[in-house]
Amino acid sequence: MSQFICEKIAIIGVGLIGGSFARALKDSMSVKEIIGFDTDSKNLDVALELKIIDRKGSSLKDTVSNSDVVFIAAPVSVIPLIAEDIAPYLAPGCIVTDGGSVKAEIVEKCEDVIPDGCFFVGGHPIAGTEFSGAAASFSTLYSAKRCILTPTENTDENALEVVSQLWSKTGAIVCMMDAKRHDRIFAEISHLPHIIAYALVHAVGASDSEGENVLSFSAGGFKDFTRIASSDPVMWRDIAIMNKKALLNSIDSFSSTLNKLRTAIADEDGKALEAMFRTSKSLRDQIL
Amino acid sequence: MSQFICEKIAIIGVGLIGGSFARALKDSMSVKEIIGFDTDSKNLDVALELKIIDRKGSSLKDTVSNSDVVFIAAPVSVIPLIAEDIAPYLAPGCIVTDGGSVKAEIVEKCEDVIPDGCFFVGGHPIAGTEFSGAAASFSTLYSAKRCILTPTENTDENALEVVSQLWSKTGAIVCMMDAKRHDRIFAEISHLPHIIAYALVHAVGASDSEGENVLSFSAGGFKDFTRIASSDPVMWRDIAIMNKKALLNSIDSFSSTLNKLRTAIADEDGKALEAMFRTSKSLRDQIL
Repeated sequence: MSQFICEKIAIIGVGLIGGSFARALKDSMSVKEIIGFDTDSKNLDVALELKIIDRKGSSLKDTVSNSDVVFIAAPVSVIPLIAEDIAPYLAPGCIVTDGGSVKAEIVEKCEDVIPDGCFFVGGHPIAGTEFSGAAASFSTLYSAKRCILTPTENTDENALEVVSQLWSKTGAIVCMMDAKRHDRIFAEISHLPHIIAYALVHAVGASDSEGENVLSFSAGGFKDFTRIASSDPVMWRDIAIMNKKALLNSIDSFSSTLNKLRTAIADEDGKALEAMFRTSKSLRDQIL
Repeated sequence: MSQFICEKIAIIGVGLIGGSFARALKDSMSVKEIIGFDTDSKNLDVALELKIIDRKGSSLKDTVSNSDVVFIAAPVSVIPLIAEDIAPYLAPGCIVTDGGSVKAEIVEKCEDVIPDGCFFVGGHPIAGTEFSGAAASFSTLYSAKRCILTPTENTDENALEVVSQLWSKTGAIVCMMDAKRHDRIFAEISHLPHIIAYALVHAVGASDSEGENVLSFSAGGFKDFTRIASSDPVMWRDIAIMNKKALLNSIDSFSSTLNKLRTAIADEDGKALEAMFRTSKSLRDQIL
């Protein structure tokens, strides 16, 4: 009996997410062979040089053929397209999973294109850094971080178990969640803050019409607050559009709350203002 | 000739800001005697025990009498009231300065109440931590941080020079700015982010009507982003109301930008979204 959870894993997109997944699985001896593919051939070379992967796939077909598991670690808008592209080449019993930050649309589309006899399991590891690329990956990225899997009524039990075990081997704490619930929660906790940070820096910086060089006065608070505005514009463009429905709800809820605060300030209603600040502080202190 | 910039300084409010000012001046041998006053008598005891101050004032009168300089390190709404209370007891030539985060209203009111023959200089050290009280103060808080002084046409040149020298001795980089300009800039760079952070945590947490326990999923990004929502509600209530005019402008400018992003998301206008994100990222990357 093999000690491996599976023999051969294909990783499509060997950047921070895919590369760290590969490193962690190698470290935990959970997989025999890892084949990598990347549209950025330089990045793929780096992944091989650093022994993050055992060999480079020459094409998507070459990469996924005979793989037990395929992990798609690509921008959210591309994941369903890759699933469609690899579908004809998947070996019977192959399990396809992903690491996208939006789940409902990806799960629906991928379930649709993955052929009978193969399986899809949606996933989202809650981990990352502000860096990207194979060279930025490291084996403990997922250690003690949550990885959310979003099975549906169509999900194969065994496939779910294999993906779950793989993530556990990376050190992640695996939990299950409905894909739509996932998208609602991450719209609020992650996608909305990114949109706000982009909006804030844009409002403060780009509209500095009086040439006051306002951003040069930013101290620690502003820097912490806007760090995520340095995130990849293309990645966040895709996430925002793919999670549009939940995100618009979150933006509207936030705007309505901001407007209440605005009214309290305009009315110099110190009581209302303090009460709302207190509620926020108490909520925030709980997640310290 | 004395090595001291002044003989006797009174500090009203011996917390993080006032206490750190005292410690830094003592360390740099810039003042002979520091007298402290605080409405929180326990905090005042701590300041004396830790030798942050040389003696406790028994009253405002006792504290400021015979002082060369009075530093008011109190919540912004209280600073003008304190200035009014101490006015009758100031020795001729006494220089009063403050550390409030809003300047125009404070400067106007304080200039009004400080008697002829005494001087007022508005100040705002751009430094702080999330902690408060004398015990949280430390002598290097202001080291290499900016301290903004906001002289007006009424400001005495010599008084400005003394306050400037004192802040330089704390390690701060002193710069001068018009009070209204200060308030516009800090509305954008500091007050607005606080209001947004309070609004975000409130919107995400308090309106969690479906009981999804959304905040429990917050990872590093959300935590960094909302750290300032743990700030003191009373302090920020006062700042928001006192800097109302500039802050409402900043909120409106931000809301308008957020609304543009909202429209781009709703229209799935990836081009517009990416362009705005890119502008923000490029602005944010510059202040790293």
